[in-house]
Amino acid sequence: MPHESQQDSHGQRQRRRILEAARDVCSAEGLGGVSIARLAGEVGMSKSGVAAHFPSKEALQLATVESAAEGYERHVIRPPHDAEPGLERLVAMMEAWVGYIDEIGYRGGCFFAAAANEFGSQPGPVRDLVARYTRSWMDALAREARTAGRQGELGGQVDPQQLAFQLHACVQEANLCRQLLDDADAFGRARLAIRDLIAAARAASPLRSTSSQGDSE
Amino acid sequence: MPHESQQDSHGQRQRRRILEAARDVCSAEGLGGVSIARLAGEVGMSKSGVAAHFPSKEALQLATVESAAEGYERHVIRPPHDAEPGLERLVAMMEAWVGYIDEIGYRGGCFFAAAANEFGSQPGPVRDLVARYTRSWMDALAREARTAGRQGELGGQVDPQQLAFQLHACVQEANLCRQLLDDADAFGRARLAIRDLIAAARAASPLRSTSSQGDSE
Repeated sequence: MPHESQQDSHGQRQRRRILEAARDVCSAEGLGGVSIARLAGEVGMSKSGVAAHFPSKEALQLATVESAAEGYERHVIRPPHDAEPGLERLVAMMEAWVGYIDEIGYRGGCFFAAAANEFGSQPGPVRDLVARYTRSWMDALAREARTAGRQGELGGQVDPQQLAFQLHACVQEANLCRQLLDDADAFGRARLAIRDLIAAARAASPLRSTSSQGDSE
Repeated sequence: MPHESQQDSHGQRQRRRILEAARDVCSAEGLGGVSIARLAGEVGMSKSGVAAHFPSKEALQLATVESAAEGYERHVIRPPHDAEPGLERLVAMMEAWVGYIDEIGYRGGCFFAAAANEFGSQPGPVRDLVARYTRSWMDALAREARTAGRQGELGGQVDPQQLAFQLHACVQEANLCRQLLDDADAFGRARLAIRDLIAAARAASPLRSTSSQGDSE
């Protein structure tokens, strides 16, 4: 939204405060809890003040999703671009992602996990946007696995989309285990599972000896 | 609830109809959508008629969780008891579970995945009950993996809880991919991932030759 960068800084700050509160409310109670009245209460503004930034509940929900996506862009998606394409970057992507969700400040854990579950079966623009970001991240993981395969860093029989599915699953599961079961080991388990999945995919690589792969990791 | 089996069959049928509708509403819109007024509308009863069975929204939500758990008990938990303890039963448990969620009639996919995400960060009796059932299923998977390990069907270095975490993750991920991304392959991917995880755990077993484990599965 380039035109908004010309808004006065007071308006920008207000908008940012509303969206920070919205992300927080959302991940604790779901996007359904994100309404103009509720956010006005959270940030101490009038309803018309909030509505000046976000004219409808859906607009507020969509902006909340975009705002959360910016956090992922900054902390999860961008940093791994410093790593070499292929296996190194795939590992960096997973480390950045697990690290972000593990340390995340939202009360409800992973924003997209919460939003995905809430809107997964409620057709509309919010579901479409959450799905687009989720799909885009899974595609990015699969693309990097494909590059790793082309570079001979993973075995030829490793299916990049299947590997992305399994890697993605580890983080979703960790999020669930910590949120619902208060499992303090959840992210340790996810990191171990990711390491094992990557090791198994590497063990099948033509670049590595396969003679002693059984107990080497 | 043994005393309820003595209720007249009309009351039982009413109660069952309310709970079936409640499960359906819940998995499409979340347990938050399960209220006395809403259910009265869904099943064509008066609010006081519904309230005679479930005096509060929370009572209705708890009964909805118990009702969904009965479906899991019948279709997922009980059938694998026909299989031999250990690896055979672990495989049967995963097959029953994946099959049930894959074919499930609820609009929102896996009941417990939806409920877990919604109530994961909302302390109270509903969260506690959802957590108890989720924990109990994960413990059952880990226990069976432990039995398999003791019987030499899995390698000594296989951590039963870690394997349970990874198996559980596959089904959660499939549910997410189908609900949010309309991924028709999601359950096929989960089945493949489960097969690979079990194969890797078996490959490390002292009961099997480890010399050619690389490409045998």
